[in-house]
Amino acid sequence: MITHLPLCSILNPKKVLVIGGGVGGNLRELSRHASIEKIEICEIDRMVVEVSKQFFPDLAVGFEDPRVTLHIDDGVAFLKAVPEGTYDAIIVDSSDPIGPAQEKPFFQSVAKALRPGGVVCTQAESIWLHMHIIEDIVSNCRQIFKGSVNYAWTTVPTYPSGVIGFMLCSTEGPPVDFKHPVNPLDACGSNSIGPLKFYNSEIHSAVFCLPSFVKKVIDSKAK
Amino acid sequence: MITHLPLCSILNPKKVLVIGGGVGGNLRELSRHASIEKIEICEIDRMVVEVSKQFFPDLAVGFEDPRVTLHIDDGVAFLKAVPEGTYDAIIVDSSDPIGPAQEKPFFQSVAKALRPGGVVCTQAESIWLHMHIIEDIVSNCRQIFKGSVNYAWTTVPTYPSGVIGFMLCSTEGPPVDFKHPVNPLDACGSNSIGPLKFYNSEIHSAVFCLPSFVKKVIDSKAK
Repeated sequence: MITHLPLCSILNPKKVLVIGGGVGGNLRELSRHASIEKIEICEIDRMVVEVSKQFFPDLAVGFEDPRVTLHIDDGVAFLKAVPEGTYDAIIVDSSDPIGPAQEKPFFQSVAKALRPGGVVCTQAESIWLHMHIIEDIVSNCRQIFKGSVNYAWTTVPTYPSGVIGFMLCSTEGPPVDFKHPVNPLDACGSNSIGPLKFYNSEIHSAVFCLPSFVKKVIDSKAK
Repeated sequence: MITHLPLCSILNPKKVLVIGGGVGGNLRELSRHASIEKIEICEIDRMVVEVSKQFFPDLAVGFEDPRVTLHIDDGVAFLKAVPEGTYDAIIVDSSDPIGPAQEKPFFQSVAKALRPGGVVCTQAESIWLHMHIIEDIVSNCRQIFKGSVNYAWTTVPTYPSGVIGFMLCSTEGPPVDFKHPVNPLDACGSNSIGPLKFYNSEIHSAVFCLPSFVKKVIDSKAK
Protein backbone atom coordinates (compact mmCIF):
# COMPACT_ATOMS: atom_id res chain seq x y z
CA MET A 1 0.00 0.00 0.00
CA ILE A 2 2.78 2.42 0.99
CA THR A 3 4.30 1.85 -2.47
CA HIS A 4 1.22 1.65 -4.71
CA LEU A 5 -0.60 4.70 -3.32
CA PRO A 6 2.16 7.10 -4.47
CA LEU A 7 3.33 5.17 -7.54
CA CYS A 8 -0.16 4.74 -9.01
CA SER A 9 -0.81 8.45 -8.51
CA ILE A 10 1.78 9.70 -11.03
CA LEU A 11 2.44 8.87 -14.67
CA ASN A 12 5.63 7.07 -15.66
CA PRO A 13 7.55 7.08 -12.36
CA LYS A 14 11.23 6.46 -13.17
CA LYS A 15 13.35 7.17 -10.09
CA VAL A 16 12.21 6.05 -6.65
CA LEU A 17 13.85 6.25 -3.21
CA VAL A 18 12.88 4.09 -0.22
CA ILE A 19 13.99 5.26 3.24
CA GLY A 20 13.99 2.36 5.68
CA GLY A 21 12.11 -0.77 4.61
CA GLY A 22 15.21 -2.98 4.65
CA VAL A 23 13.00 -6.05 4.89
CA GLY A 24 12.39 -5.71 1.15
CA GLY A 25 8.59 -5.84 0.91
CA ASN A 26 8.38 -2.32 -0.54
CA LEU A 27 10.97 -3.26 -3.17
CA ARG A 28 8.99 -6.34 -4.10
CA GLU A 29 5.91 -4.21 -4.65
CA LEU A 30 7.83 -1.50 -6.52
CA SER A 31 9.04 -4.18 -8.88
CA ARG A 32 5.47 -4.42 -10.27
CA HIS A 33 5.84 -0.93 -11.75
CA ALA A 34 7.35 -1.37 -15.21
CA SER A 35 8.13 2.31 -15.86
CA ILE A 36 10.62 2.51 -12.97
CA GLU A 37 14.27 2.61 -14.06
CA LYS A 38 16.05 3.14 -10.75
CA ILE A 39 15.13 2.15 -7.18
CA GLU A 40 17.42 3.30 -4.39
CA ILE A 41 16.91 2.12 -0.83
CA CYS A 42 18.57 3.67 2.22
CA GLU A 43 18.39 1.36 5.25
CA ILE A 44 20.26 2.25 8.42
CA ASP A 45 20.71 -1.30 9.70
CA ARG A 46 22.42 -3.92 7.54
CA MET A 47 21.23 -6.68 9.83
CA VAL A 48 17.59 -5.96 8.91
CA VAL A 49 18.42 -6.82 5.32
CA GLU A 50 20.42 -9.92 6.26
CA VAL A 51 17.77 -11.28 8.62
CA SER A 52 15.08 -10.69 6.03
CA LYS A 53 17.05 -12.53 3.34
CA GLN A 54 17.47 -15.48 5.71
CA PHE A 55 14.01 -15.67 7.26
CA PHE A 56 11.60 -13.76 4.99
CA PRO A 57 12.59 -14.72 1.45
CA ASP A 58 9.10 -13.82 0.16
CA LEU A 59 9.76 -10.20 1.13
CA ALA A 60 13.52 -10.05 0.55
CA VAL A 61 12.91 -11.17 -3.05
CA GLY A 62 12.52 -7.44 -3.73
CA PHE A 63 16.32 -7.05 -3.55
CA GLU A 64 16.69 -9.30 -6.59
CA ASP A 65 15.23 -6.64 -8.89
CA PRO A 66 18.22 -5.41 -10.94
CA ARG A 67 16.94 -1.82 -10.71
CA VAL A 68 17.61 -1.81 -6.92
CA THR A 69 20.67 -0.20 -5.28
CA LEU A 70 21.06 -0.64 -1.51
CA HIS A 71 22.69 2.06 0.63
CA ILE A 72 23.42 1.29 4.28
CA ASP A 73 23.19 4.78 5.75
CA ASP A 74 21.15 7.12 7.94
CA GLY A 75 18.23 8.33 5.82
CA VAL A 76 18.51 11.87 7.18
CA ALA A 77 22.19 12.11 6.16
CA PHE A 78 21.59 10.35 2.84
CA LEU A 79 18.84 12.77 1.83
CA LYS A 80 21.03 15.80 2.55
CA ALA A 81 23.49 14.65 -0.11
CA VAL A 82 20.84 14.01 -2.78
CA PRO A 83 20.83 16.57 -5.64
CA GLU A 84 17.67 18.70 -5.78
CA GLY A 85 14.77 17.26 -7.80
CA THR A 86 16.23 13.76 -8.14
CA TYR A 87 13.23 11.49 -7.48
CA ASP A 88 9.70 11.04 -8.82
CA ALA A 89 8.64 9.33 -5.60
CA ILE A 90 10.03 8.78 -2.11
CA ILE A 91 8.67 6.16 0.28
CA VAL A 92 9.41 6.62 3.97
CA ASP A 93 8.98 3.42 5.93
CA SER A 94 11.11 4.21 8.95
CA SER A 95 10.92 5.54 12.52
CA ASP A 96 7.57 5.16 14.21
CA PRO A 97 5.58 6.64 15.91
CA ILE A 98 7.87 9.56 16.89
CA GLY A 99 11.35 10.15 15.57
CA PRO A 100 13.52 12.09 13.17
CA ALA A 101 11.43 11.01 10.18
CA GLN A 102 8.42 12.94 11.54
CA GLU A 103 10.27 16.22 11.96
CA LYS A 104 10.26 19.29 9.76
CA PRO A 105 13.92 19.28 8.59
CA PHE A 106 13.45 15.71 7.41
CA PHE A 107 10.33 16.57 5.41
CA GLN A 108 12.16 19.57 3.97
CA SER A 109 14.96 17.30 2.72
CA VAL A 110 12.35 14.98 1.21
CA ALA A 111 10.64 17.88 -0.58
CA LYS A 112 13.98 19.09 -1.93
CA ALA A 113 14.92 15.64 -3.23
CA LEU A 114 11.66 15.36 -5.20
CA ARG A 115 11.10 16.76 -8.69
CA PRO A 116 8.31 19.34 -9.10
CA GLY A 117 5.03 17.40 -8.74
CA GLY A 118 6.92 14.50 -7.17
CA VAL A 119 5.24 12.44 -4.44
CA VAL A 120 6.07 11.12 -1.00
CA CYS A 121 4.31 8.50 1.09
CA THR A 122 5.16 8.08 4.77
CA GLN A 123 3.74 5.90 7.51
CA ALA A 124 1.45 8.06 9.61
CA GLU A 125 0.27 6.26 12.71
CA SER A 126 -3.13 5.05 13.90
CA ILE A 127 -6.30 7.16 13.93
CA TRP A 128 -7.35 5.25 17.08
CA LEU A 129 -4.17 5.86 19.05
CA HIS A 130 -2.20 8.80 17.67
CA MET A 131 -4.49 11.62 16.51
CA HIS A 132 -2.31 14.15 18.36
CA ILE A 133 0.75 13.01 16.38
CA ILE A 134 -1.20 12.89 13.12
CA GLU A 135 -2.31 16.46 13.77
CA ASP A 136 1.32 17.58 13.99
CA ILE A 137 2.42 15.60 10.93
CA VAL A 138 -0.40 17.07 8.82
CA SER A 139 0.47 20.54 10.03
CA ASN A 140 4.17 20.10 9.15
CA CYS A 141 3.37 18.62 5.75
CA ARG A 142 1.02 21.47 4.83
CA GLN A 143 3.82 23.93 5.52
CA ILE A 144 6.39 22.06 3.46
CA PHE A 145 4.57 20.39 0.56
CA LYS A 146 2.99 23.01 -1.66
CA GLY A 147 1.18 20.57 -3.95
CA SER A 148 -1.36 18.20 -2.42
CA VAL A 149 -1.42 16.93 1.20
CA ASN A 150 -3.63 13.96 2.07
CA TYR A 151 -4.17 11.49 4.87
CA ALA A 152 -5.09 7.89 4.04
CA TRP A 153 -5.52 4.79 6.20
CA THR A 154 -5.91 1.06 5.90
CA THR A 155 -6.12 -2.05 8.06
CA VAL A 156 -3.20 -4.22 9.15
CA PRO A 157 -4.42 -6.73 11.75
CA THR A 158 -0.97 -7.14 13.34
CA TYR A 159 -0.44 -3.41 13.96
CA PRO A 160 -1.53 -1.75 17.21
CA SER A 161 -5.30 -1.03 16.97
CA GLY A 162 -5.39 -2.80 13.59
CA VAL A 163 -4.89 0.21 11.35
CA ILE A 164 -2.09 2.29 9.86
CA GLY A 165 -2.17 5.71 8.25
CA PHE A 166 -0.21 7.31 5.45
CA MET A 167 0.65 10.87 4.52
CA LEU A 168 0.60 11.39 0.77
CA CYS A 169 2.04 14.70 -0.35
CA SER A 170 3.26 16.24 -3.57
CA THR A 171 5.63 19.12 -4.23
CA GLU A 172 4.76 22.27 -6.15
CA GLY A 173 4.45 21.52 -9.85
CA PRO A 174 2.10 19.41 -11.98
CA PRO A 175 -0.90 18.75 -9.68
CA VAL A 176 -1.38 15.27 -8.25
CA ASP A 177 -4.85 13.92 -7.43
CA PHE A 178 -4.00 11.05 -5.12
CA LYS A 179 -7.59 9.91 -4.77
CA HIS A 180 -7.95 8.90 -8.43
CA PRO A 181 -5.02 6.76 -9.58
CA VAL A 182 -3.80 7.90 -13.02
CA ASN A 183 -1.44 4.95 -13.28
CA PRO A 184 -3.62 2.00 -12.24
CA LEU A 185 -1.68 -1.07 -11.27
CA ASP A 186 -3.36 -3.44 -13.72
CA ALA A 187 -1.72 -1.38 -16.47
CA CYS A 188 1.68 -1.34 -14.75
CA GLY A 189 2.56 -4.89 -15.66
CA SER A 190 3.35 -7.54 -13.07
CA ASN A 191 6.08 -10.12 -12.66
CA SER A 192 6.91 -13.48 -11.16
CA ILE A 193 5.79 -12.52 -7.66
CA GLY A 194 2.18 -13.31 -8.42
CA PRO A 195 -1.04 -11.29 -8.38
CA LEU A 196 -1.82 -8.56 -5.86
CA LYS A 197 -3.82 -9.94 -2.93
CA PHE A 198 -5.05 -6.74 -1.29
CA TYR A 199 -4.49 -3.57 -3.35
CA ASN A 200 -6.71 -2.57 -6.26
CA SER A 201 -7.91 0.76 -7.67
CA GLU A 202 -11.14 0.74 -5.65
CA ILE A 203 -9.19 0.23 -2.43
CA HIS A 204 -6.85 3.02 -3.55
CA SER A 205 -9.73 5.50 -3.60
CA ALA A 206 -11.41 4.13 -0.47
CA VAL A 207 -8.39 4.64 1.80
CA PHE A 208 -8.79 8.43 1.46
CA CYS A 209 -12.33 8.35 2.92
CA LEU A 210 -11.93 9.44 6.51
CA PRO A 211 -14.12 9.00 9.61
CA SER A 212 -15.73 12.26 10.72
CA PHE A 213 -13.53 12.64 13.83
CA VAL A 214 -10.40 12.37 11.65
CA LYS A 215 -11.72 14.71 8.97
CA LYS A 216 -12.47 17.32 11.61
CA VAL A 217 -8.87 17.37 12.89
CA ILE A 218 -7.32 17.30 9.42
CA ASP A 219 -9.62 19.97 7.99
CA SER A 220 -8.83 22.22 10.94
CA LYS A 221 -5.15 21.98 9.97
CA ALA A 222 -6.03 23.17 6.45
CA LYS A 223 -6.92 26.63 7.77
CA MET B 1 -22.47 1.43 10.99
CA ILE B 2 -24.74 -1.65 11.17
CA THR B 3 -27.70 0.75 11.42
CA HIS B 4 -26.72 3.57 9.05
CA LEU B 5 -25.60 1.37 6.14
CA PRO B 6 -29.10 -0.10 5.65
CA LEU B 7 -31.14 2.92 6.83
CA CYS B 8 -29.30 5.42 4.61
CA SER B 9 -29.80 3.13 1.61
CA ILE B 10 -33.61 3.42 1.46
CA LEU B 11 -35.96 6.38 1.35
CA ASN B 12 -38.28 7.07 4.29
CA PRO B 13 -37.72 3.98 6.43
CA LYS B 14 -40.68 3.69 8.81
CA LYS B 15 -40.63 0.27 10.50
CA VAL B 16 -37.38 -1.25 11.72
CA LEU B 17 -36.60 -4.46 13.60
CA VAL B 18 -33.40 -5.12 15.55
CA ILE B 19 -32.53 -8.73 16.41
CA GLY B 20 -30.10 -8.87 19.33
CA GLY B 21 -28.30 -5.64 20.19
CA GLY B 22 -29.79 -5.43 23.69
CA VAL B 23 -26.99 -3.09 24.73
CA GLY B 24 -28.89 -0.31 22.96
CA GLY B 25 -26.21 1.23 20.73
CA ASN B 26 -28.11 0.34 17.56
CA LEU B 27 -31.24 1.97 18.97
CA ARG B 28 -29.30 5.12 19.81
CA GLU B 29 -28.09 5.33 16.20
CA LEU B 30 -31.53 4.51 14.76
CA SER B 31 -32.91 7.41 16.75
CA ARG B 32 -31.06 9.77 14.38
CA HIS B 33 -33.38 8.74 11.55
CA ALA B 34 -36.38 11.03 11.70
CA SER B 35 -38.59 9.13 9.25
CA ILE B 36 -38.77 6.03 11.46
CA GLU B 37 -42.11 5.54 13.21
CA LYS B 38 -41.61 2.18 14.90
CA ILE B 39 -38.50 0.42 16.19
CA GLU B 40 -38.90 -3.09 17.55
CA ILE B 41 -36.02 -4.88 19.22
CA CYS B 42 -35.94 -8.58 20.01
CA GLU B 43 -33.22 -9.45 22.54
CA ILE B 44 -33.02 -12.98 23.96
CA ASP B 45 -31.38 -12.02 27.27
CA ARG B 46 -33.02 -9.47 29.56
CA MET B 47 -29.85 -9.18 31.62
CA VAL B 48 -27.98 -7.68 28.62
CA VAL B 49 -30.44 -4.80 28.66
CA GLU B 50 -30.28 -4.38 32.44
CA VAL B 51 -26.48 -4.46 32.60
CA SER B 52 -26.25 -1.97 29.77
CA LYS B 53 -28.67 0.43 31.46
CA GLN B 54 -26.57 0.22 34.63
CA PHE B 55 -23.05 0.36 33.20
CA PHE B 56 -23.29 1.75 29.64
CA PRO B 57 -25.78 4.62 29.85
CA ASP B 58 -24.32 6.24 26.71
CA LEU B 59 -25.45 3.19 24.72
CA ALA B 60 -28.59 2.28 26.68
CA VAL B 61 -29.90 5.80 26.04
CA GLY B 62 -31.29 4.29 22.83
CA PHE B 63 -34.07 2.64 24.85
CA GLU B 64 -35.40 6.08 25.80
CA ASP B 65 -36.60 6.74 22.24
CA PRO B 66 -40.43 6.54 22.50
CA ARG B 67 -40.56 4.73 19.14
CA VAL B 68 -38.82 1.69 20.68
CA THR B 69 -40.62 -1.50 21.82
CA LEU B 70 -38.51 -4.17 23.54
CA HIS B 71 -39.35 -7.87 23.16
CA ILE B 72 -37.45 -10.39 25.28
CA ASP B 73 -37.58 -13.41 23.00
CA ASP B 74 -35.60 -15.71 20.73
CA GLY B 75 -35.13 -13.86 17.43
CA VAL B 76 -35.74 -17.00 15.40
CA ALA B 77 -39.09 -17.63 17.11
CA PHE B 78 -40.05 -13.95 17.03
CA LEU B 79 -39.46 -13.67 13.28
CA LYS B 80 -41.66 -16.70 12.56
CA ALA B 81 -44.63 -14.87 14.08
CA VAL B 82 -44.08 -11.63 12.14
CA PRO B 83 -46.63 -11.00 9.35
CA GLU B 84 -45.13 -11.05 5.85
CA GLY B 85 -43.72 -7.73 4.58
CA THR B 86 -43.80 -5.94 7.93
CA TYR B 87 -40.45 -4.12 8.03
CA ASP B 88 -38.54 -1.67 5.85
CA ALA B 89 -35.28 -2.71 7.48
CA ILE B 90 -34.01 -5.46 9.79
CA ILE B 91 -30.72 -5.26 11.67
CA VAL B 92 -29.23 -8.51 12.90
CA ASP B 93 -26.66 -7.98 15.62
CA SER B 94 -26.69 -11.42 17.22
CA SER B 95 -24.86 -14.76 17.23
CA ASP B 96 -21.29 -14.67 16.04
CA PRO B 97 -19.34 -16.11 14.31
CA ILE B 98 -21.40 -19.32 13.80
CA GLY B 99 -24.93 -19.84 15.01
CA PRO B 100 -28.59 -19.92 14.12
CA ALA B 101 -28.49 -16.37 12.73
CA GLN B 102 -26.11 -17.48 9.95
CA GLU B 103 -28.36 -20.30 8.74
CA LYS B 104 -30.68 -20.43 5.78
CA PRO B 105 -34.03 -20.79 7.60
CA PHE B 106 -33.20 -17.69 9.61
CA PHE B 107 -32.41 -15.66 6.51
CA GLN B 108 -35.62 -16.93 4.93
CA SER B 109 -37.63 -15.63 7.89
CA VAL B 110 -35.84 -12.29 7.59
CA ALA B 111 -36.64 -12.05 3.88
CA LYS B 112 -40.29 -12.89 4.56
CA ALA B 113 -40.58 -10.24 7.28
CA LEU B 114 -39.28 -7.51 4.93
CA ARG B 115 -41.42 -5.54 2.49
CA PRO B 116 -40.50 -5.79 -1.23
CA GLY B 117 -37.23 -3.83 -1.62
CA GLY B 118 -36.69 -3.95 2.15
CA VAL B 119 -33.16 -4.24 3.50
CA VAL B 120 -31.26 -6.30 6.05
CA CYS B 121 -27.85 -5.76 7.58
CA THR B 122 -26.15 -8.54 9.53
CA GLN B 123 -22.76 -8.83 11.15
CA ALA B 124 -20.56 -10.89 8.84
CA GLU B 125 -17.25 -11.74 10.43
CA SER B 126 -13.64 -10.78 9.67
CA ILE B 127 -12.04 -10.95 6.24
CA TRP B 128 -8.74 -11.83 7.99
CA LEU B 129 -10.10 -14.74 10.03
CA HIS B 130 -13.35 -16.06 8.57
CA MET B 131 -13.32 -16.05 4.78
CA HIS B 132 -14.67 -19.64 4.77
CA ILE B 133 -17.69 -18.53 6.84
CA ILE B 134 -18.17 -15.37 4.77
CA GLU B 135 -18.19 -17.54 1.65
CA ASP B 136 -21.09 -19.58 3.04
CA ILE B 137 -23.04 -16.54 4.22
CA VAL B 138 -22.73 -14.87 0.82
CA SER B 139 -23.82 -18.07 -0.88
CA ASN B 140 -26.88 -18.39 1.37
CA CYS B 141 -27.82 -14.76 0.94
CA ARG B 142 -27.62 -14.93 -2.84
CA GLN B 143 -30.09 -17.81 -2.78
CA ILE B 144 -32.55 -16.06 -0.52
CA PHE B 145 -32.38 -12.31 -1.25
CA LYS B 146 -33.44 -11.66 -4.82
CA GLY B 147 -32.64 -7.94 -4.78
CA SER B 148 -29.09 -6.85 -4.07
CA VAL B 149 -26.46 -8.78 -2.05
CA ASN B 150 -23.33 -6.96 -0.88
CA TYR B 151 -20.43 -7.44 1.49
CA ALA B 152 -19.03 -4.43 3.36
CA TRP B 153 -16.38 -4.10 6.07
CA THR B 154 -15.01 -1.59 8.51
CA THR B 155 -12.52 -1.34 11.37
CA VAL B 156 -13.27 -1.88 15.06
CA PRO B 157 -10.00 -1.95 17.00
CA THR B 158 -11.44 -4.06 19.84
CA TYR B 159 -12.71 -6.85 17.57
CA PRO B 160 -10.54 -9.86 16.69
CA SER B 161 -8.19 -8.82 13.84
CA GLY B 162 -9.52 -5.25 14.08
CA VAL B 163 -12.24 -5.50 11.44
CA ILE B 164 -15.88 -6.54 11.09
CA GLY B 165 -17.91 -7.28 8.02
CA PHE B 166 -21.57 -6.78 7.13
CA MET B 167 -23.95 -8.45 4.71
CA LEU B 168 -26.32 -5.94 3.14
CA CYS B 169 -29.15 -7.49 1.19
CA SER B 170 -32.48 -6.41 -0.22
CA THR B 171 -35.57 -8.37 -1.16
CA GLU B 172 -37.16 -8.49 -4.59
CA GLY B 173 -38.84 -5.18 -5.38
CA PRO B 174 -37.69 -1.60 -5.85
CA PRO B 175 -33.92 -1.89 -6.47
CA VAL B 176 -31.53 -0.81 -3.71
CA ASP B 177 -28.07 0.53 -4.53
CA PHE B 178 -26.34 0.18 -1.16
CA LYS B 179 -23.12 1.79 -2.34
CA HIS B 180 -24.68 5.21 -2.93
CA PRO B 181 -26.79 6.33 0.05
CA VAL B 182 -30.11 7.82 -1.15
CA ASN B 183 -30.98 8.92 2.38
CA PRO B 184 -27.77 10.59 3.59
CA LEU B 185 -27.59 10.99 7.33
CA ASP B 186 -27.00 14.74 7.33
CA ALA B 187 -30.50 15.05 5.91
CA CYS B 188 -32.00 12.60 8.44
CA GLY B 189 -31.96 15.03 11.33
CA SER B 190 -30.13 14.35 14.56
CA ASN B 191 -31.00 14.65 18.23
CA SER B 192 -29.59 15.18 21.67
CA ILE B 193 -27.00 12.41 21.38
CA GLY B 194 -24.55 14.64 19.57
CA PRO B 195 -22.85 14.53 16.19
CA LEU B 196 -21.72 11.34 14.48
CA LYS B 197 -18.06 10.60 15.22
CA PHE B 198 -17.28 7.96 12.62
CA TYR B 199 -19.98 7.48 9.96
CA ASN B 200 -20.43 9.82 7.00
CA SER B 201 -21.51 9.34 3.38
CA GLU B 202 -17.93 8.94 2.09
CA ILE B 203 -17.28 6.19 4.64
CA HIS B 204 -20.60 4.62 3.60
CA SER B 205 -19.37 4.19 0.03
CA ALA B 206 -15.82 3.22 1.01
CA VAL B 207 -16.85 0.21 3.12
CA PHE B 208 -18.04 -1.57 -0.03
CA CYS B 209 -14.56 -1.42 -1.62
CA LEU B 210 -13.10 -4.87 -1.09
CA PRO B 211 -9.52 -6.17 -1.11
CA SER B 212 -8.78 -8.34 -4.13
CA PHE B 213 -8.68 -11.60 -2.16
CA VAL B 214 -12.17 -10.90 -0.77
CA LYS B 215 -13.57 -9.81 -4.12
CA LYS B 216 -12.34 -13.02 -5.69
CA VAL B 217 -14.22 -15.21 -3.20
CA ILE B 218 -17.39 -13.13 -3.29
CA ASP B 219 -17.47 -12.83 -7.09
CA SER B 220 -17.04 -16.60 -7.38
CA LYS B 221 -20.23 -16.97 -5.32
CA ALA B 222 -22.08 -14.77 -7.83
CA LYS B 223 -21.81 -17.44 -10.51
